[in-house]
Amino acid sequence: MTANVYITPKQDILDPQGKAVGNALRDLGYNEVTDVRVGRYIILKIDSVDDQDPRQRLEEMCKRLLANINVESYKIEIMED
Amino acid sequence: MTANVYITPKQDILDPQGKAVGNALRDLGYNEVTDVRVGRYIILKIDSVDDQDPRQRLEEMCKRLLANINVESYKIEIMED
Repeated sequence: MTANVYITPKQDILDPQGKAVGNALRDLGYNEVTDVRVGRYIILKIDSVDDQDPRQRLEEMCKRLLANINVESYKIEIMED
Repeated sequence: MTANVYITPKQDILDPQGKAVGNALRDLGYNEVTDVRVGRYIILKIDSVDDQDPRQRLEEMCKRLLANINVESYKIEIMED
């Protein structure tokens, strides 16, 4: 199966990368852009394993490695191939 | 409105960051993970401007700044707030 994980800076956390991208876009003339936040999009291919709940395993992966849960939120989407 | 932009390394392009994340996950015991690709997830808040097609403007932003179209693909999702 395939899992998509979306990781974003939490709403009340400063996002300097997003600020920089927003400034660069406005410098190029895209003045309609009022806010930018930059996160990560991680695509995982996963083998099904008996007796394992893939969502629970992915939650663990996010907490242990993929996201910094102090400052980032994550969303998991699982698709059977 | 809000636009979500998903940027991923193209399928035939090496993704060293994805490889590193995959190795780290397997080191932690998640042996069901067979492949990882790491992209970017960019959330933009955009004012509506008369006579401007937001999708066309976002395509331009991707090509000019947000993505490196030689090695990355992008997908744009627009939502009215």
